[in-house]
Amino acid sequence: MKLRDVGEDKLLDQLLPHLRLGKTVVAGAGDDCAVTKMFPGRNFLVLKTDCIVEGVHFLSGANPVDVGWKAMMRPLSDFAATSAVPQFALVTLIASKETEVEWVRKLYRGLRRAAKRFKISIVGGEMSGTPGPIAISVSIVGFVEKGRWLSRRGGKVGDDLFVTGRLGGAVKQKHLQFIPRIVESRWLTKSFAIHAMMDLSDGLGVDLPRLARASNVGFKIEMESLPLSRGAKVDSAISEGEDYELLFAISPRHSRRLQRAWKRKFPKLALTRIGQLHQRSNIKRQTLPGGYVHFQQPS
Amino acid sequence: MKLRDVGEDKLLDQLLPHLRLGKTVVAGAGDDCAVTKMFPGRNFLVLKTDCIVEGVHFLSGANPVDVGWKAMMRPLSDFAATSAVPQFALVTLIASKETEVEWVRKLYRGLRRAAKRFKISIVGGEMSGTPGPIAISVSIVGFVEKGRWLSRRGGKVGDDLFVTGRLGGAVKQKHLQFIPRIVESRWLTKSFAIHAMMDLSDGLGVDLPRLARASNVGFKIEMESLPLSRGAKVDSAISEGEDYELLFAISPRHSRRLQRAWKRKFPKLALTRIGQLHQRSNIKRQTLPGGYVHFQQPS
Repeated sequence: MKLRDVGEDKLLDQLLPHLRLGKTVVAGAGDDCAVTKMFPGRNFLVLKTDCIVEGVHFLSGANPVDVGWKAMMRPLSDFAATSAVPQFALVTLIASKETEVEWVRKLYRGLRRAAKRFKISIVGGEMSGTPGPIAISVSIVGFVEKGRWLSRRGGKVGDDLFVTGRLGGAVKQKHLQFIPRIVESRWLTKSFAIHAMMDLSDGLGVDLPRLARASNVGFKIEMESLPLSRGAKVDSAISEGEDYELLFAISPRHSRRLQRAWKRKFPKLALTRIGQLHQRSNIKRQTLPGGYVHFQQPS
Repeated sequence: MKLRDVGEDKLLDQLLPHLRLGKTVVAGAGDDCAVTKMFPGRNFLVLKTDCIVEGVHFLSGANPVDVGWKAMMRPLSDFAATSAVPQFALVTLIASKETEVEWVRKLYRGLRRAAKRFKISIVGGEMSGTPGPIAISVSIVGFVEKGRWLSRRGGKVGDDLFVTGRLGGAVKQKHLQFIPRIVESRWLTKSFAIHAMMDLSDGLGVDLPRLARASNVGFKIEMESLPLSRGAKVDSAISEGEDYELLFAISPRHSRRLQRAWKRKFPKLALTRIGQLHQRSNIKRQTLPGGYVHFQQPS
């Protein structure tokens, strides 16, 4: 059965009432707007939207449960980067009339699973027709305590650079099943003074220069210490993207204590010091003997 | 010059810094998440997302400034329905590499103009590629005072039904240039006890039954009193949609006072009593002599 046989509104009427809503939700999907209670305390509001498109972020044959998972988890990875707590999600699905209803049901199963993992309420669901490829846009709203908010901008000269997990090879499978590092990020800002943080979605080679630029510093990476995924090479760890691991800067005074505490708290997840932040310099990109770019902040 | 020549990231880097941000915005577009201050007082958080697609909600040849305006104003019409104050917008643009950069610039001009009209900060802007038609998704976040929140659900038997403005014919031009009735809605909930409200986006014939169903009541419309746009016929006022006017229910005790006060406050905008809410009945749809459906709550 296809979307054209059921109608978008009817399908949404079937899907949306089954969404699990948190206690703070006053009105969820189905009314003109979603309405929720405010979270108390001295907090900032945090907002993020992202979208994935068929043929660009997932292949047409991908499992729709995985597609829903990825659509929800991508903006959540930005929440991890901000050390924020996600609470509410708005979903927009743009799909053709020829889309199988079963595909949409499975997509929502993936969205719901992902939301449940982080206790998020899906409070809005829109659907629109298109003659083109399927696109799913997800917006997330939540909060962060004023003292725990992180951005790319606070990195200081001399800071150690760390990454969580392993890099490279994510485009094979992990990009559809990754778990945003929200738990890890919340633990980090509870226990340590992190200066700057971001999530690695476009690859270290693109994302690290962004953090350095935002912090107005340079950087130097020790290529030999990059934590590689099984079977991945250095260049894929640098340029492939879709890792959704955290990259952050912390004063070297705290690095030892951080590494010991991390090992106790997250024994299964690697935490690796990959380099340092430096003064902005004029040193251009250098090529290592192995052919890899020993990349530093270009002038 | 096309998107492929500039790159999405570069174009966003040019567009986003020019966004006008309110004083409550701590971090706008460009970082992983947007971060804003919370609005004080005993308020609810209000969230809405919506999208428009080329070929469905606007023609390929439409003025991109108008397209941006419509993309922003559609979810704002839902804020009017909720009597909420919009504050922050997240924009996702899905466009092909062949899209003219100038088209995107003009789209953002329309988005910015629309945001400025209601003092909204655009705090997030994403762009993604597609081989298909252009789609623009906009999410809005804001607040409503606990005592002023309206939904479709509060209508009572005996309530008078009112609509703002004139209905029908909007698909010609108005749908690209309408102004959501936020000012009017905020005035209504400041001065009057409105029972239920919604915005007319799909046409009175579809939307009124939704309000009645949500309120668990029936309805009766006096077709002869429907406020028609110039040149519009009754059937287009009922079924065409895209009016973006307000439909609301209020106790008949307050109708006179409302109509007098409205005329003083909004002398240029019609406010028309079009019928009443009734007990749910078993009366089926009836056809009027003129051929119009004299529509009542079907059993």
